[in-house]
Order: sequence, then C-alpha cells, then structure tokens
Amino acid sequence: MIQVWKDYQEKNKDRFLNELLELLRIPSVSAKSENKEDMKRCAEAVKQRLLEAGADKVDIYPTDGHPIVYGEKIIDPSKPTVLVYGHYDVQPAEPLELWKSGPFDPTIIDGKIFARGSCDDKGQMYMHIKALEILTQTNTLENNIKFCIEGEEEVGSPNLGKFVSANKELLKADCVLISDSAMISLDTPSIDIGVRGLSYIEVEVTGPNRDLHSGVYGGAVANPITILAKMIASLHDENNHITIPGFYDDVAVATAEERELMARAPFDETEFKTDLGIKQLWGEEGFTTNERTGIRPTIELNGIWGGYIGEGAKTVLPSKAFAKISARLVPNQTSAKITEILINHLQKIAPANVTVNAKLHHGGEPYMTPIDSTAYKAAAKAMEATFGKTPIPVRGGGSIPICSLFEKELGIKIVFMGFGLDSDNLHSPNEKFDIANFYKGIETIPYFHKFFTEMK
Amino acid sequence: MIQVWKDYQEKNKDRFLNELLELLRIPSVSAKSENKEDMKRCAEAVKQRLLEAGADKVDIYPTDGHPIVYGEKIIDPSKPTVLVYGHYDVQPAEPLELWKSGPFDPTIIDGKIFARGSCDDKGQMYMHIKALEILTQTNTLENNIKFCIEGEEEVGSPNLGKFVSANKELLKADCVLISDSAMISLDTPSIDIGVRGLSYIEVEVTGPNRDLHSGVYGGAVANPITILAKMIASLHDENNHITIPGFYDDVAVATAEERELMARAPFDETEFKTDLGIKQLWGEEGFTTNERTGIRPTIELNGIWGGYIGEGAKTVLPSKAFAKISARLVPNQTSAKITEILINHLQKIAPANVTVNAKLHHGGEPYMTPIDSTAYKAAAKAMEATFGKTPIPVRGGGSIPICSLFEKELGIKIVFMGFGLDSDNLHSPNEKFDIANFYKGIETIPYFHKFFTEMK
Repeated sequence: MIQVWKDYQEKNKDRFLNELLELLRIPSVSAKSENKEDMKRCAEAVKQRLLEAGADKVDIYPTDGHPIVYGEKIIDPSKPTVLVYGHYDVQPAEPLELWKSGPFDPTIIDGKIFARGSCDDKGQMYMHIKALEILTQTNTLENNIKFCIEGEEEVGSPNLGKFVSANKELLKADCVLISDSAMISLDTPSIDIGVRGLSYIEVEVTGPNRDLHSGVYGGAVANPITILAKMIASLHDENNHITIPGFYDDVAVATAEERELMARAPFDETEFKTDLGIKQLWGEEGFTTNERTGIRPTIELNGIWGGYIGEGAKTVLPSKAFAKISARLVPNQTSAKITEILINHLQKIAPANVTVNAKLHHGGEPYMTPIDSTAYKAAAKAMEATFGKTPIPVRGGGSIPICSLFEKELGIKIVFMGFGLDSDNLHSPNEKFDIANFYKGIETIPYFHKFFTEMK
Repeated sequence: MIQVWKDYQEKNKDRFLNELLELLRIPSVSAKSENKEDMKRCAEAVKQRLLEAGADKVDIYPTDGHPIVYGEKIIDPSKPTVLVYGHYDVQPAEPLELWKSGPFDPTIIDGKIFARGSCDDKGQMYMHIKALEILTQTNTLENNIKFCIEGEEEVGSPNLGKFVSANKELLKADCVLISDSAMISLDTPSIDIGVRGLSYIEVEVTGPNRDLHSGVYGGAVANPITILAKMIASLHDENNHITIPGFYDDVAVATAEERELMARAPFDETEFKTDLGIKQLWGEEGFTTNERTGIRPTIELNGIWGGYIGEGAKTVLPSKAFAKISARLVPNQTSAKITEILINHLQKIAPANVTVNAKLHHGGEPYMTPIDSTAYKAAAKAMEATFGKTPIPVRGGGSIPICSLFEKELGIKIVFMGFGLDSDNLHSPNEKFDIANFYKGIETIPYFHKFFTEMK
C-alpha cells in the first residue's frame, strides 16, 4: 500500500469514524414527509464534508423532491474523470421495536457500527469523501473526481433523471463509480457485475363500500383480504415459478458458462440457513440460491395490510385490503413492461366481487457491467492491491435504478465497488457496517482512481 | 298501547335521548388497555342510571378484566323474574379516518344517532333501563327485573362465566332478555331465534429471523406474507366451501322446512348489493344469502398485516406476517373443537420454510331459542302490540357467546329482542341507531314484561 495514504489514514482514522457517526445521527428517511427538514440538513452536512475534504466547488441542487449534492475536484480537465454516485437518504427504520439500539443513535458493538444507513449508503458514500481527503491532503490526486450524492435513492430516484439530463456537461466523466452494494467478505473480495431492476407497486383491493360486521355479513360478501390472498397465492406455482403470462418473455437466459462461473462463488448452505434462522431454502426450482437472487426475476410481497390490526379482536369484514408488491428484474426485462404486465394481471385475476386499484411506486432497469471494461479492470486491480486477492465477479440481487440512466444520458459505464456484506441488515432493523470494511473501502478507493487514470 | 306508558315516554323522550348521548361520549373500548379508566367510568354511569330508573340495588362487581354492573328491582320474589343482559363496552373505532363525525362525539343526522356503541349495545341496553323507569314511574311493574350489564362482550366475555357461576342465586330468573341484535326493519319486525358461535384466532407466520433486503434475498428465502396468503387462499375451494378436514362434521343440517321458512324473509338482492356497493354476491355454493349468514359456518379474515405498511416504498422481505381469523359456528359445532381443528390445520399446511404460532382470542357457542318457549311467545306478542305485525323468526349471523353460558348455569332460555338494523354499521365506521328504533324498543319492552308475567 502506498505509504503516504496509509500513514494519513492511520493518523486520522478515529476522526473519519466520528464524522460518519455524526452523519448517521440525521434521520434522513426520504420516504417520509415528516423528515423533509432532516433531508435538507443532511444534504447540507454532505456539502460541508465535501468542501472540507478538498472539493473546489459544491452545490446543492433543489429538485421536486429532496435535493441533490453535487461536488467536484478538478485538477486538469484533460485528465480522466471519475463520477462518484452515492446517496444520503436511508430506508425507513420500522419496525422500531426490533432495533437493539436507536436507528439514528449509532452504536458500536464488536467493531460494527449499528445504525440505519451505516452501510446503505451513508457509510459507503462517506468512504469516497474520505478517499478524496487522503488524495488531496497527500497531494497524490492525478485525476478529476465528481460527486453526485442524491437524496431519493430509497424511493426510486424520481428526480435524478431530470437533473442528469439537464446537467450532462457538469456530470461529464469517463466512468461512474458506485459503492452501494456488497462483497462476499473481507477474505473473499468480489465485485457486482450486475444489479437487478425493479418494479414496485401498491395494490388496493376494495370489496364492500364500508367495513362490515363479520357475523352479520360473513359468508355472504367477498372478503377483500381473502380475495387478495388468493390473488397473491396464484402468482407462484408449486415450483415457485411465477405464473404471470409474459413475465419471463424477455429474460436473458444465463449461459452454462456463466452459471458455472457463478457456482465458484463460495456458498455455505448451512451457514446461510443458520444466519437467517430458516430450516429450508426456497425458490424457483432448477436454480441455486445464488442464481435465484442473481440471474432470475422474482416477485416479493413487501407489505400487506387490511382490516383490524390493533390489539385484541375485532369481528370486522373489512372494506379494503392492501399490498406492496415488487418484482426484481434481470436483463433484458424492462421496468415499464413488467409493471404493465403485473398490474394488468392483477386486474384480470380479480373476481367481479372486488375492484382493484394498483399504482407504481417506482421502478428501475436491470444493469450489467462488462468485465473487460477499463472501469471493471481498474476496480479489480485496486482490490487486488489492498486485499491481496483477485475479486470474484458476481451478480447482485438488489437494484440501483440509476445505472441505466447514467449509461444512457452520459454514455459511460458504471462500476460497483461494494464494501458492505449481504448480512449487514440493509433495509432491516439493526443495519450495520463493519468498521474494518469502512476502513478497507477508504484504503481501496484511491487505488481505483490511480489505476483508472493509468489505464485510461 | 297502554296510555300511561305512552304519555310518560312522550313527555320524557328528549331526556331519554340526551341521556343516551351522554353515555355514548365515554370511549368504553374493552379491547384497549388505554381505555381502562373509561371502562370504570362507564360502569359507574350505568350504575347511576339504573338507580335513577328505579332499581333498588345496584352493585359494580370487579372481575379480572372490566367490571360487571348488576342491578335489580324486586317487587315480589314469588313473581316471574326477567334477567336483562347487555353490555356497556364497544368495539374499537378504527379506522378513524372513515368516520364522518367523531365516534365518541355522537351526532344526529336524519334522525339517526351516529356514534360507536349507539346500536351495539349502549343504545339497545339503555332501552331496558328506560323501560324500567317507565314501569316504575307509572306503577305498572308486575314482575321482577334483574340487570347484568357487562364490559367485555366485545372481547369474548372472558370473565362473565366465573361471575355467573359464582352468583347463581343472585341471577336466578325465569328467562334472559337480550337486545343486542337486529330486526329486519320497522316495517318488518323479526326476532332472532339463533346466533352463530365464534372461534377467533390470531396467527403469526415467521420466516427468516429478521427483516431482509428483498433484492439481496428475494427469490431465495420464503416470504412469510406469500406463505400466509397461500395458507389463507387454501381455506376455501372454488365453490367457497371451507376445505379444512372435519370443519363441517358437526353442522346440524337445516331441514327443507326450515329453509323454506327462512326464504320467506324479505331479501332484495339489488338493494343489498347497492347498499354495500358490490357488483356480485359471494358465498358457499348451494345456499342463499340468508342461509350463508344464518345456517352455515364461515371463515373470515378480520385482519392481516406484515412487512412495511407505511407511506411510500420499502424493499423488505419481512420476517413475519400476521392474520386475525375467525370462524362463525352453527349448531352443533363447538368453539373448542373448531379452534383446535383450525389451529392444527394451519400448522399442518404451513411449509417447513416457516413456523406458525396461533392463539385463541375468544370463542363462543352457537345458540338456538325454541319458538314454542314462553319467552319467545311473549316477545312475539309484545312486538305485535307495538308494530301491529307478527315478527318473523330469523337466524342471526352474529354471535352472543354468553347465551349457552346462561342456559347452562341458570337453566333458563334466552330471548333476543333486537331493535337495530343490519345496516347500522356495527363494528364499522359510522355506526348508527335510528332514534325511531330506540323509541320503539322502549315502547315494546314493557309489553314483554307484561306478557311474560301473564303467560308464566
């Protein structure tokens, strides 16, 4: 490892950590209108940190939703430029009662930072700000770095598209670098070469025009919960294959070679089951666990509610039942087409006893990074430099909907350097980020800039 | 109508109404621990009203739950005694946003009192207190009246059994009179001759030991919402017949004669559908709407929840999903047996990917009143006196779990004189009670006491 970088990080590592903890204290939940002011405060904090880290220019761009923070350190416009994308917003923390410490009161236990956003994505985004500080403070920066840190990733980036297409010159770069995903472990580094797309909808099933007494009307009026359950149940067959006509039409079937490569990634079934507390795996017949989350599309129920859900008992036959349903997509499915297929299917299978309303919350396209691109090669070489091992290319199950947007608008490739772990409880109670991984990310990122500049 | 009763009611009717409104302002929700003090306050108010109406003795009996109000007016122990049962507790008011006026801020619109408990059962219970006042104030009471007004009917009367068996002498009577049900209309009086039993359970389905990211794990881990939906969906077949083995075993099949009698009750399908805003009827094939709610057992979903149910979107694969499920029972099913069958069945059909925990909220037995009993005949004659028409005997769909308890412990028959309407939004937002029905009940009840005493 380059000695000046190492020395600088060693000397400042406690401050780096404390700065992150401070950022984690801001409840920047983009989905909730009650956190609107916290979002502004968080964008302002990111701006200040970028300036302190050495950015020449940082601006907060208002949008129709939450603001975008743009920053840059330009040393020479003729040199290669890396655009770092990240997000300062976080998922809602609910269910709060399952957190062992406050979601916005970061707590360190066994070398791990427990807090909402510790890994997704404040912790990983902040590694890039600290890498900038190391490069500028040690006078070793050889390329230009731009930062686009948005506040709406967790709600589907509804306003980023407009910002990117209106600011193509500002954002002009040679690649996009994103740390918003995971690697296998510190012992087995890996790089995501693909992310799944998303189609997230909310469904409302209405039966009678008001809640009814389940004794007086029960048995004679269709119960919207029962109907919704039947609709949900019918979406997968007995092999957990999705039954919606047309759903798999555009799926790019992975080659035998690709499936063989995927099978090389370590997977310990017993450990996986023990970690999750489950007795049995689940999924589409004919595919392994890694394939089920990597190369196959899925439909998941993210939420369901209807009727009386309070304490005790209420004998009600409810008027309405609701579900939040999302599909994860793989190349070459498109979010718009799957959303249409999904909503039409739900409307079609609903019996005449109910009416179904469905709306799109957000969507995003699947994305693949070629392993022969300069960006991928630079990332792999950077990880080799700090991990001492060649990273394994893997397909991630999550979604980063803005990838196809950047590629389309800016004409550049995206590379994912994730330093989190799948077991970091992203979107769950007790989200965490290992301090060791945080530091490893800060160590590795400067090498990416160095190698990308050299290879370009 | 007996003139002195008529004159007294006419002179005092506004006060009668205002007293009821005052009672409705107390949020006596038995299911919620936060209303414990309101429950005490309501019991105290019922006691005061009984004393003011002429009861000689009124006591509040504490229980392990909410208190029971017992009152009596004994004119001569050798005369017939009627035990009036009612309840001062109400269902939770949720969903609050669907109420057009506050559930505990009674509002009169078009001659109807809108408030939680207006019909079920404060309004109907209060008719009996006002009937007592009329009888005592006009010196026309010829029998003894006892009142047992409990505070836990809406949570399954868990403590009434102990009270009744410990106070058999106190409660000794010749029949039980209950107004906690409906009639067809003021134009078509009817008397319920049966109520359905109940088995109300709550089910918890647990998949992974924590909420997971639906992208990272989706497709590879069983989603408890999906599993619960499949379990619920399997409870009814394509003819809406319940599929649980043994569920129908003890059902007393109604005779052709009884079904023919039931078919005489007026039922306007178009009006029924228009009132509920539904396009199509639903229910077990081979049975009419009245039969589906009267002589057949059912399974209803009263509530469901799991995953993220807040504003916006959260891509979570939840750890748990829950449902509140109740079965309505008919003779000769028993609550204990059906509860066992239901819980065992849910456990059995759950795949190994999840664990299922189920608990009983409360239960109650189905009950039938013979139409050749003195109590039924007195009720029918009382309604003839004030409605000018013979009431139709019908089977009610709701449950009054304490009926079989009274019969077993006190060895007496129960008669149901309901003055509410099925459309009174019991257990729903905007519960109402027509003032005309309230007054009609007060008019009719003194006749019941008179005729029952004469016939006995």
